Amino acid sequence: MPATDIARLTEVDQAFLDQYLPVPKHTSQPSGTPEQHGLPFVTLTYACSLDGMIALAPGVRTSLSGPETKSMTHYLRLKHDAILVGAGTAVADAPSLNCRYPGAGLDSQPRPIVVDPTGRWEADDSAVGNLAEEKQGKEPWVVSLNAGNSERVRRLIVAESDDGTMRWEEILKVLKVEGINSVMIEGGATVINTLLARSDLVDSVIVTIAPTWLGQGGLAACPSAATENGQRVNAARLRETTWRQFGSDAVLCGRLGA
Amino acid sequence: MPATDIARLTEVDQAFLDQYLPVPKHTSQPSGTPEQHGLPFVTLTYACSLDGMIALAPGVRTSLSGPETKSMTHYLRLKHDAILVGAGTAVADAPSLNCRYPGAGLDSQPRPIVVDPTGRWEADDSAVGNLAEEKQGKEPWVVSLNAGNSERVRRLIVAESDDGTMRWEEILKVLKVEGINSVMIEGGATVINTLLARSDLVDSVIVTIAPTWLGQGGLAACPSAATENGQRVNAARLRETTWRQFGSDAVLCGRLGA
Repeated sequence: MPATDIARLTEVDQAFLDQYLPVPKHTSQPSGTPEQHGLPFVTLTYACSLDGMIALAPGVRTSLSGPETKSMTHYLRLKHDAILVGAGTAVADAPSLNCRYPGAGLDSQPRPIVVDPTGRWEADDSAVGNLAEEKQGKEPWVVSLNAGNSERVRRLIVAESDDGTMRWEEILKVLKVEGINSVMIEGGATVINTLLARSDLVDSVIVTIAPTWLGQGGLAACPSAATENGQRVNAARLRETTWRQFGSDAVLCGRLGA
Repeated sequence: MPATDIARLTEVDQAFLDQYLPVPKHTSQPSGTPEQHGLPFVTLTYACSLDGMIALAPGVRTSLSGPETKSMTHYLRLKHDAILVGAGTAVADAPSLNCRYPGAGLDSQPRPIVVDPTGRWEADDSAVGNLAEEKQGKEPWVVSLNAGNSERVRRLIVAESDDGTMRWEEILKVLKVEGINSVMIEGGATVINTLLARSDLVDSVIVTIAPTWLGQGGLAACPSAATENGQRVNAARLRETTWRQFGSDAVLCGRLGA
């Protein structure tokens, strides 16, 4: 069982989050969600400052949220079959991607998944790989455009789209085929900013906001500008929103769409 | 008495805000605040999106917050002797800068103040000026580096600093001399970003966050980058923070400083 420095959430905190989570884990999802279309339940989650930054600069690991929201992150990890990050985050932050929530055994660990089209991330000697060896987390999977040259990590191959990139529909379909019914997507900025525009793929959004400003030049969670009839309009919105204070931070839950 | 489309806040909402407000209006402030040094009590307040934007683009008036936080804004205006904005905001947004909280008579209106070093704003035919003529708000004052050529508006002259700009200490001192014991500073981005770095001048910060992303190219509430020993550090922080949901928005109150 993973060692833990993580406190349990109160029942009220759990109830606040549970409305926006896949329930129960490992089973089919409520009707009307993207999962009905053969995709996993997707929770997009990140922590940012009041100026919408997730890091002081690209590649600089930045601690934003307090201990209460750290507990929340591990509770959320417990509730999903997989945790997914982009290769940039996997390289820069060396995240553990395991669940240290009290009582979380190896069976209840989420599958760590790194989306790595161009083979930037090395599983060997990574924090994720090491935790898997120590039985503190599951072996990571890599989603890639090609088989790569590492034999140590399982690679899920996604067909290249016409413009040479990966399509998120294809990534999520491949995960579903592999038995992943729910995935928590944790970053980084490129992944977040792309998926904020994809209300067709994202079931829930959970944002932690820390009462600080990182300042200009930080790495922003900020989607591309959107226009309608030649006028700028909001790039994305949440509906069914609920806010709750966790320590000195706030957590916002909602669903994408007007 | 100004016509109103504004609902009263609940007592719980009022109590949440009152901890961060000058109490009581028109009297001296608690010890330990900047007001002890001959300055008014300063509340810095603005509404932003999850990506820290206050408008879709510079000069584009953008509605961010819901009716509940609009009530809050007018409650806050009731609790201050003056409301201050920069000339850019006064020109672009044509704000009313009056208080439409239920029961707010002309006596309890805050003084509208436009900080306008270079004479960009015309009081004549402005929303603020028109409301004053209709007795729905007080006559605006302009804080300026020179006497200008309008005789219709009262101008408070602040001495130019060595670099040709206005210093915020001087602006606030001039207001205090004129009997302004508390001022609510509402924007725009230049004013906010400057004052977020001035924990010596700002007593309270009240930020409304709307569950939307405006997207890249928006006007950001984001202070200049800060460094310590050559390393980037957070540009500003709030302490003594409390969050509360107002409709679908959240309101964060706190005080600047580590």
